Amino acid sequence: MESSEKHLNILLFSGDYDKCLAALIVANGAMEMGMTATIFCAFWGLFVVRDVDKISMEDKNLYEKMFSSMTPTNAERLPLSKMNFAGIGKSMLLNMMDDNHTPHLQDFLEGARKKGVRFCACKLSLEIMGFKPEELLEGIEVIDVKAYLEDAADANIQLFV
Amino acid sequence: MESSEKHLNILLFSGDYDKCLAALIVANGAMEMGMTATIFCAFWGLFVVRDVDKISMEDKNLYEKMFSSMTPTNAERLPLSKMNFAGIGKSMLLNMMDDNHTPHLQDFLEGARKKGVRFCACKLSLEIMGFKPEELLEGIEVIDVKAYLEDAADANIQLFV
Amino acid sequence: MESSEKHLNILLFSGDYDKCLAALIVANGAMEMGMTATIFCAFWGLFVVRDVDKISMEDKNLYEKMFSSMTPTNAERLPLSKMNFAGIGKSMLLNMMDDNHTPHLQDFLEGARKKGVRFCACKLSLEIMGFKPEELLEGIEVIDVKAYLEDAADANIQLFV
Repeated sequence: MESSEKHLNILLFSGDYDKCLAALIVANGAMEMGMTATIFCAFWGLFVVRDVDKISMEDKNLYEKMFSSMTPTNAERLPLSKMNFAGIGKSMLLNMMDDNHTPHLQDFLEGARKKGVRFCACKLSLEIMGFKPEELLEGIEVIDVKAYLEDAADANIQLFV
Repeated sequence: MESSEKHLNILLFSGDYDKCLAALIVANGAMEMGMTATIFCAFWGLFVVRDVDKISMEDKNLYEKMFSSMTPTNAERLPLSKMNFAGIGKSMLLNMMDDNHTPHLQDFLEGARKKGVRFCACKLSLEIMGFKPEELLEGIEVIDVKAYLEDAADANIQLFV
Repeated sequence: MESSEKHLNILLFSGDYDKCLAALIVANGAMEMGMTATIFCAFWGLFVVRDVDKISMEDKNLYEKMFSSMTPTNAERLPLSKMNFAGIGKSMLLNMMDDNHTPHLQDFLEGARKKGVRFCACKLSLEIMGFKPEELLEGIEVIDVKAYLEDAADANIQLFV
């Protein structure tokens, strides 16, 4: 199968519910077609791969503690990029997704992990935000921007989301 | 001509006036150079390809009706991504574009359609938002994420806007 | 070295501090790996390459003057894309970056210029915004969308930021 050799690379910068949903739907689709896929989570995209049960306040400085306590703890709690877009709210979007029997972000995330999407976290972003590798979901690789670039340069599709 | 074989693929996720403008300017430029171009409209990007004269309230549930009546009905009514960016408003941007004799979004959209850009609408996004294929501009193909990925994997340039 | 032939192309549309930071970190990383990199600044991305000391009010019409006086004058003054994201502000992000000894946007910009990233400004965007080529940092090429597409079509990685 021709597409079995093809590779998708997504730099997930955004922490918006709808954008993360789009990224994961594309990655799931790619895996189902026999492509391989890497999602490199940087900046706000790190919130998608944090493990809510492992967040620790130990060894964090004041800013890191404040930041950690204020920010969304897992994927389902992310805000919409267009919270006020024409008045639509996240609960309304979720209701519309439910009516259509569309899975939620958390489901697409679990699907992508089961299908073998390679999830990576940006080392520099982790350091800036004061997140520890232990606070991430199991199996998330911590890599630097050069390792991201190597993966992206060999991909057939690269997206910045 | 070497560039006649080249292909551009844009996943238009955004419904912001300025981002849609950028996507359409790039697609128009590509066509003028002899490239081919596909724009896959998903989520908020669907608003670019809705036909204001065909919007129907029939067979919509409550959420879909609310959503349909609140959201922008055509491309020209889309908001700016930076509505408050340093105080600039959309009317000011449009005035500046007029002073420079730059066409508006609607003009770039019509130009892209005349030049033969392939416009596609994301099947899942349509379902979630409760838009019917009949509510789209004429000639918009409804395809799924896998058909998008096939087009994107064969493109020389892929952008997520 | 295999990667010495590889090329990165970024269309920098955004004028958000965090997104510009991401773009410049990726471009710096690419140069350090022996890749080449082009950053094509369009719309709000033009603010990254404006020279604060060269901004002139001469020969500008009323809109251009208003716009010029209201918008950020250099890279360090750009806002965050998520100014209100969970309450985090730009000063807090900068403090966290300082704690981690991470350089600021201005430093990454200077690093990228020293390493030889090709910086281009979008001709049409300049015209719409009423910026003159003389108001840009030294060595910024002014090119049109077709020249951007030629560069992007030959790149191994294309990103829309």
